[in-house]
Amino acid sequence: MTAPDVPIGHADGLSPVRVALLGCGVVGTEVVRLLTTQAEDLAARSGAPLEIVGIAVRDVDAPRDPIVGRHLLTDDAEALVDRADVVVEVMGGVEPARTLLLRALERGAAVVTANKALLGADGPTLYGAADAAGADLYFEAAVAGAIPLVRPVRESLAGDRITRVLGIVNGTTNYVLDQMTTTGLSLDDALARAQELGYAEADPTADVEGHDAAAKAAILASLAFHTRVSVDDVHCEGIMSVTADDVAWARESGHVVKLLAIAERSNGGVVVRVHPALVPEDHPLASVRGAFNAVFVEAEAAGELMFYGRGAGGLPTASAVLGDLVTVARHRVRGGKGPVESRYAELPVRSIGAATTRYQVRLRVVDRPGVLAQVSTVFAEHRVSIETVRQAASNPDPTHADLLVVTHAATDDSLRATVAAVGELPVVEQVLSVLRVEGV
Amino acid sequence: MTAPDVPIGHADGLSPVRVALLGCGVVGTEVVRLLTTQAEDLAARSGAPLEIVGIAVRDVDAPRDPIVGRHLLTDDAEALVDRADVVVEVMGGVEPARTLLLRALERGAAVVTANKALLGADGPTLYGAADAAGADLYFEAAVAGAIPLVRPVRESLAGDRITRVLGIVNGTTNYVLDQMTTTGLSLDDALARAQELGYAEADPTADVEGHDAAAKAAILASLAFHTRVSVDDVHCEGIMSVTADDVAWARESGHVVKLLAIAERSNGGVVVRVHPALVPEDHPLASVRGAFNAVFVEAEAAGELMFYGRGAGGLPTASAVLGDLVTVARHRVRGGKGPVESRYAELPVRSIGAATTRYQVRLRVVDRPGVLAQVSTVFAEHRVSIETVRQAASNPDPTHADLLVVTHAATDDSLRATVAAVGELPVVEQVLSVLRVEGV
Repeated sequence: MTAPDVPIGHADGLSPVRVALLGCGVVGTEVVRLLTTQAEDLAARSGAPLEIVGIAVRDVDAPRDPIVGRHLLTDDAEALVDRADVVVEVMGGVEPARTLLLRALERGAAVVTANKALLGADGPTLYGAADAAGADLYFEAAVAGAIPLVRPVRESLAGDRITRVLGIVNGTTNYVLDQMTTTGLSLDDALARAQELGYAEADPTADVEGHDAAAKAAILASLAFHTRVSVDDVHCEGIMSVTADDVAWARESGHVVKLLAIAERSNGGVVVRVHPALVPEDHPLASVRGAFNAVFVEAEAAGELMFYGRGAGGLPTASAVLGDLVTVARHRVRGGKGPVESRYAELPVRSIGAATTRYQVRLRVVDRPGVLAQVSTVFAEHRVSIETVRQAASNPDPTHADLLVVTHAATDDSLRATVAAVGELPVVEQVLSVLRVEGV
Repeated sequence: MTAPDVPIGHADGLSPVRVALLGCGVVGTEVVRLLTTQAEDLAARSGAPLEIVGIAVRDVDAPRDPIVGRHLLTDDAEALVDRADVVVEVMGGVEPARTLLLRALERGAAVVTANKALLGADGPTLYGAADAAGADLYFEAAVAGAIPLVRPVRESLAGDRITRVLGIVNGTTNYVLDQMTTTGLSLDDALARAQELGYAEADPTADVEGHDAAAKAAILASLAFHTRVSVDDVHCEGIMSVTADDVAWARESGHVVKLLAIAERSNGGVVVRVHPALVPEDHPLASVRGAFNAVFVEAEAAGELMFYGRGAGGLPTASAVLGDLVTVARHRVRGGKGPVESRYAELPVRSIGAATTRYQVRLRVVDRPGVLAQVSTVFAEHRVSIETVRQAASNPDPTHADLLVVTHAATDDSLRATVAAVGELPVVEQVLSVLRVEGV
């Protein structure tokens, strides 16, 4: 049964704004708590009371925090959407969230969502539906949790030209890499510890393989460059190949290993990538610890900006949801709407091969005179300039040597070709690792 | 002669939004440059072209950057205001800026201002005029230059409860203290160097005495706590009393000296203060170098957030102005308006005596047994708990000793009374310095 369609109109400042909540997990419960405990403040800021008209859940009878009133629960999400002014979606996943939010936008209801998977996969469809309906679509909580990032990028920097976005946007992998750096643990052991402490899920695939960071990178790139970018356009490497050795060598050369999400202009196009990278120890991103997130934004006029805070967690994410909710409620009461996701630029999205970066390559070579000359020649033939070469101080096996080569900036394509060619040299026994160097 | 009053209406997306610029110094020139060079992007984001209808300057014949079209210049600011949809004020100072902006708001024109002196001194009058007229008043550039801070605080965190704002908001003093820390220079020498390099003005009073930081603190406090705070409510101590010795002792105890602007809830009220303080070396604010600014915001749900970037300079400030300009132009074209400066909370503003903080006190005492006991007793009598006491390792004069006392948290009133009483002790020859410790 579908509830009767309730018209959406401007509230008069006395009638409440009708809020439908889709999903009631950790974030949803905190949203309910804030809506309940801060009701007076939120009404003052919105211009009208915010009333929860219902909460759509899969299982109405599941045990819940007592703050969630049982009478509000329903398993008929469509009917709930049809009687709301604002739909707050914190259920996650692509479906049924997409269908429900499109239904809400088509009715002209405002949407606030924390759903990075959905926006990363199919953001443009939602942005388009919001534009077509003249409805608000806000999603601060979908990128970097509580950190105000979406709003600064799409509003504060609207008069500037963003050239690069570079950040740590996944707390789980940052915690794991941090543990490896400070304790020397292997990746498996650090991940196990993160799971014990609840910083990583039982199935950590989305985090450690970089998919979560890639979704956020796609959303940020769309906003920063006014271009349609989906998660499928993002070059994505996770942290599973990072070894304790990589971390130790990084430290020796004054770096830390971080999983970075990078979106940047390149030759009239845009490159978006997620991969582990070496960051200099004195770079502000290097000191971002544990479950914190931080995003660097470089703009032509503003210069370097950094945004730092908690990237996940029920309460921080709920804070971001509520900030958006107050804004769309205010629009409902006083008129107006938020920025349109203008994709007028539509820059071509290029593959990572076009990105300009630097490599740190570790090679195990035969320890005999002339090896360095042979290796250097291959780099020179590919027009990749070497910044430093260093040999490991101690080596258990005297017939081999470990070389650490750091390059100057070149395209990822030429760096990759260089490493492939170096690996073919008879004197090179093994390419031990290849890591990009960023933030210099 | 006054130009005929031009009605203010919604643009249709084709007619340009008429922009009047008040002032054409370093920031104004960069605003003109961005409006000229980024015209197409700005029109796409605003929904209509942005047209400079005039630039009010004191001296029309003064030499200027060629980007500033001479035909746009006028010395009749009032007439210019009367034919604009949006007034961008980058002239600075309280008058005539206040009169002109009130005139603009009363007409219903939107205002974008970078004027921290005016907002710090008399923000509430302007916020009130904007509310009464239903006009937009935006001022991102007035606090921390290019760093998006005003918008996150008044919009992104609208669903949260901010408990504390703590930041480095003056680049000149940060540069001077940074030089003292890294080179051991005296304050006078560091200041002279800053002046040589153009980081400090010939008359640095507003910076070194903390007035500039106090104006920004007042603006931030008003926003964060929905309360009327003017610069006169801000307890303000500058950096002139900071010595090379203070900086050296700070380093020895793992701290750096920073000029902080702090606004926080305290006993149902608000305390706003600007003073030099010791910040632990591993606090993110400690590594904010040179002319950069950074602001920590603590909110109940969001947790700790930090915003970092260039706090001054023509181009970064112009970026912030343009971001606001795009938003108010979009409201003009598509309807809507920004958040109202709701001061519904109107918390009492308390003096610094009510603030809870920690002190680091350096004392020169007579070097004889029992001195420490006497000093400790005075602290205990005032119910101020001591965290550590340390004696200087080397002392040229064996009859004296230098003690460093660090307290636990207490009210500023009781800490001050304690220090006064300690100074009265016959065994205490001199209270060498008193610095607050923050960020712990």
